[in-house]
Amino acid sequence: MSSTTLTTCSMSLQPQLQTGPQARLAARSESHAKPTSGLAPGHLQANLIVLPSRYAQDFRDLCARNPVPCPLLAESSEPGDFSSLKSHLPGIPGSAIAADLDLRTDCPGYHVYRDSKLVLDTVPDIKDQWTSDHIGFLVGCSFSFESALSKAGLPPRHAVLDRNVSIYRTSIPLNPAGVFTGATHIVSMRPYPKAAIEKVRAITRPYLQTHGECIAWGWDAVEKLGINDIDVPEWGDAPLTMEGEPLGRNWGDEDNVPVFWACGVTPQEAVMKSGLKGTVMAHAPGYMLVLDCLETDVIC
Amino acid sequence: MSSTTLTTCSMSLQPQLQTGPQARLAARSESHAKPTSGLAPGHLQANLIVLPSRYAQDFRDLCARNPVPCPLLAESSEPGDFSSLKSHLPGIPGSAIAADLDLRTDCPGYHVYRDSKLVLDTVPDIKDQWTSDHIGFLVGCSFSFESALSKAGLPPRHAVLDRNVSIYRTSIPLNPAGVFTGATHIVSMRPYPKAAIEKVRAITRPYLQTHGECIAWGWDAVEKLGINDIDVPEWGDAPLTMEGEPLGRNWGDEDNVPVFWACGVTPQEAVMKSGLKGTVMAHAPGYMLVLDCLETDVIC
Repeated sequence: MSSTTLTTCSMSLQPQLQTGPQARLAARSESHAKPTSGLAPGHLQANLIVLPSRYAQDFRDLCARNPVPCPLLAESSEPGDFSSLKSHLPGIPGSAIAADLDLRTDCPGYHVYRDSKLVLDTVPDIKDQWTSDHIGFLVGCSFSFESALSKAGLPPRHAVLDRNVSIYRTSIPLNPAGVFTGATHIVSMRPYPKAAIEKVRAITRPYLQTHGECIAWGWDAVEKLGINDIDVPEWGDAPLTMEGEPLGRNWGDEDNVPVFWACGVTPQEAVMKSGLKGTVMAHAPGYMLVLDCLETDVIC
Repeated sequence: MSSTTLTTCSMSLQPQLQTGPQARLAARSESHAKPTSGLAPGHLQANLIVLPSRYAQDFRDLCARNPVPCPLLAESSEPGDFSSLKSHLPGIPGSAIAADLDLRTDCPGYHVYRDSKLVLDTVPDIKDQWTSDHIGFLVGCSFSFESALSKAGLPPRHAVLDRNVSIYRTSIPLNPAGVFTGATHIVSMRPYPKAAIEKVRAITRPYLQTHGECIAWGWDAVEKLGINDIDVPEWGDAPLTMEGEPLGRNWGDEDNVPVFWACGVTPQEAVMKSGLKGTVMAHAPGYMLVLDCLETDVIC
């Protein structure tokens, strides 16, 4: 189901996929198998990374040392547990983050890595790969502040055009932590008018748990971040002008500049760069886990 | 008094400047007016930055978004208060961080900035500049893990040679926060044998509140960090070989490589880059505030 063709639920007279449980159930049943931007407005969305337990403490350190790209929300209650969470959010118990949960099925798409190489791309579940030694980690997602931007009259263009957000690799190093070395920041991009940037910064600033304010903006940021080609994102869809043209080849014709936020795909990049052994799983970029708690529960 | 020529205290038969209060009193009386590396072994040392209150919330955000260079330990209990602290360390009250305290006198040297320009370099106190609108912030310092390195048989060379640590500007951007934009990471450097780097990483890793493990290492890191000349640090003393030669011009002759940690001079760089208005004060790099609490109180 597309987020732009919502129907009403006969039981509650509420639109479907308006809550975390509805979105997760739709992913679990594979009736929703596309990106989650715009789903369940106001609800937190999360990046997922699932690691062998021997890498867990180093990953917690990686998050503590890089809280902007890797804001750690919660993790499996114990190794192997895919249905209950231990919270890292002060004052919010794991059961309030997501109650009826199956980390193996509740994202609309998954990536699977073996020995740090992607071996399965956007598969519907990871039931066959999950073992009793795996720990799932939830990391905040910038989709979580998109409804605040929309309410302020600044809807992200990718949502307006019903496309996936554009996601890029940068050359900005992460702070290393144990086995996690050599990785760089991943960023998501939303174009905005230059005159709106201070407003966009202010709106997203309180969302510290979901990447917070943008980390760079303007056309000169493309080079500073070491992005090769704005029209060829490494993940997600290519950015377009409102007329459907490639953004980078038309930027002289429009007032908008690229604005970059830290992105929760960063842990997947860290896994690939660090040469982890064994099976690592993650959501497919853009295909997030929708949670029960609200964006307003975590703004500072 | 040099840290290598400690005498004994007639009252206690303990070497002088072995505790936080002793070190602060010596700075206050100007009997110790040099860098604090090696003073009061095992005690936390802190970077100081003193801001007009209107910049305080953005600075807290800057620290939350950049905890490796800017691990926030404590701040003035209220604007204008230079003698009592509000703690940011879980489980440690402000009075346990430093009880008998005067933020205006207790660093052995201070820098004073006006409208983001350095106007006073390494002055003994800031009594004339401090106002009822100023808030002091304490940020963790990498001197705090140097005794752990020394105990493991890996004493930092600058301490062995009784010099100040070498501190460099890099091109790695900070995550911006409010008024704090355009700043880059500052790093301190200690040379170590290549074979010792994993041990050095492991020893410093638990010190999350005092910059934690090194962020880059090896000669290729010099270029990656955008450091112009390893022999010309922006702050502190130039690094030397054990024979007293410039390190960079002799690195082919020795087994040691530069190892870089995030540095608490970063907030001063952020102030200068962000164009803050008014009077900002800080410790002079290397001339730290020595605290009452112990390094072991904050290791994770």
